Amino acid sequence: MLENLAVVLFRPKFPENVGSAARACLNMGVTNLILVDPYNFDMDKARPLATAHAKHVLENATIVETLPEALEGFTSVYGTTARTGGWRKGIMTPSTLSDVVNDRLRSGGKVAIVFGPEDKGLTNEETSLCSGLMTIPTSREGTSLNLAQAVVVVLYECFKKSLDKPFEADGPPQERPTTVQEQEALFSNLQESLLAIDFLKDDNPDYWMLPVRRFFSKINLRRNEFNLLMGVCRQIQWFVRTYGPDKKK
Amino acid sequence: MLENLAVVLFRPKFPENVGSAARACLNMGVTNLILVDPYNFDMDKARPLATAHAKHVLENATIVETLPEALEGFTSVYGTTARTGGWRKGIMTPSTLSDVVNDRLRSGGKVAIVFGPEDKGLTNEETSLCSGLMTIPTSREGTSLNLAQAVVVVLYECFKKSLDKPFEADGPPQERPTTVQEQEALFSNLQESLLAIDFLKDDNPDYWMLPVRRFFSKINLRRNEFNLLMGVCRQIQWFVRTYGPDKKK
Repeated sequence: MLENLAVVLFRPKFPENVGSAARACLNMGVTNLILVDPYNFDMDKARPLATAHAKHVLENATIVETLPEALEGFTSVYGTTARTGGWRKGIMTPSTLSDVVNDRLRSGGKVAIVFGPEDKGLTNEETSLCSGLMTIPTSREGTSLNLAQAVVVVLYECFKKSLDKPFEADGPPQERPTTVQEQEALFSNLQESLLAIDFLKDDNPDYWMLPVRRFFSKINLRRNEFNLLMGVCRQIQWFVRTYGPDKKK
Repeated sequence: MLENLAVVLFRPKFPENVGSAARACLNMGVTNLILVDPYNFDMDKARPLATAHAKHVLENATIVETLPEALEGFTSVYGTTARTGGWRKGIMTPSTLSDVVNDRLRSGGKVAIVFGPEDKGLTNEETSLCSGLMTIPTSREGTSLNLAQAVVVVLYECFKKSLDKPFEADGPPQERPTTVQEQEALFSNLQESLLAIDFLKDDNPDYWMLPVRRFFSKINLRRNEFNLLMGVCRQIQWFVRTYGPDKKK
């Protein structure tokens, strides 16, 4: 899905961050990693952070000297920045970026997302090569994200959007919601059961049922849950018939 | 915005991940970090990863021995898992979780999100204490996220949603949400009641309680509703004592 999306790390300072970024790439279905002039790059420091699973992403990473070399062949390039002032208008969020990225990919494009060095980020020289800029929302107290953490957040949004169908965890499909008729059947059954055990009073059971009804009305009750509750009611009524004060002797 | 959201790291193995997680917390506006029985915890290894900015989040982290201790006082608890099969139904995504979390926070709740150990994740024992479970969508090739990366993705979604303005319906203030302790008291009372009327079987009541637990965990149960349900349980138990087959003659 994201075969034509690449992550470009521009002058990363710490090999460990490159390794972590490689792992994050694989987690989110991206295997094309490009390093531009990495500082003191050391595969042995990067590899443990990539873990065995993403070792191939790291080892197959392309290493080039300049950003223009890295961007050859791409149709769209987006830069990430923490600086949102000044002329940097129209800056996207990860969410809006991921819409654009997936649009481009689906129309046959090749997209690169560029992340700057840990300490300084991208300068105007690099961002001028980008078709658009993106910044990750943060609290005021902690505006600086770790490089690999920024990578995982941006790719997570892209991956999420790339799934044609919304992501669904494994497991059986959800049961259908109950109809109004079923809910009424449950209420009258509940009322009968609560009367049988003297929880509700005979004189005005509808009134006493109000909080019970209110409680259930806020739930999107599903069919299996309805069955469960009807079963409890049946059991209460059976118990009362069998053992209660008016039991058939 | 997220003052009442806490991140709970259950038995983290690597202090470095704890440091990275602390930084991720601050980035996304969360300052309440709780460590449960951390393995070989070493503040000196964790601190550099937290960076100077998030040092206070790390140093103010609460360290406790058990998960129940960590969860004291919270009204909703969500667990993270990579295992989505079996009975683990209705698993949320970070996006759907963040809707629920923000709902709960806005209604005055205190919410904890629990992350398991790096290698094994949470076991059924821990997830049984959670009101709901969440999994992060990943590619098939790289299903295992780094712990701090999982933290940043989940908190990023929560932070993003917290920036939206809340919808406020008119009406009287709602009752406070129930605490995890109250919910557990209700479950055990319900279990006793359902056993008393033979709805649950004596051989493995915990198993039969699973759907009942699941049903209640999706509800943001409030104090008045808790009182109502505890009243029903008391009444069932009274009825069984008074009329049941083992009644005192």
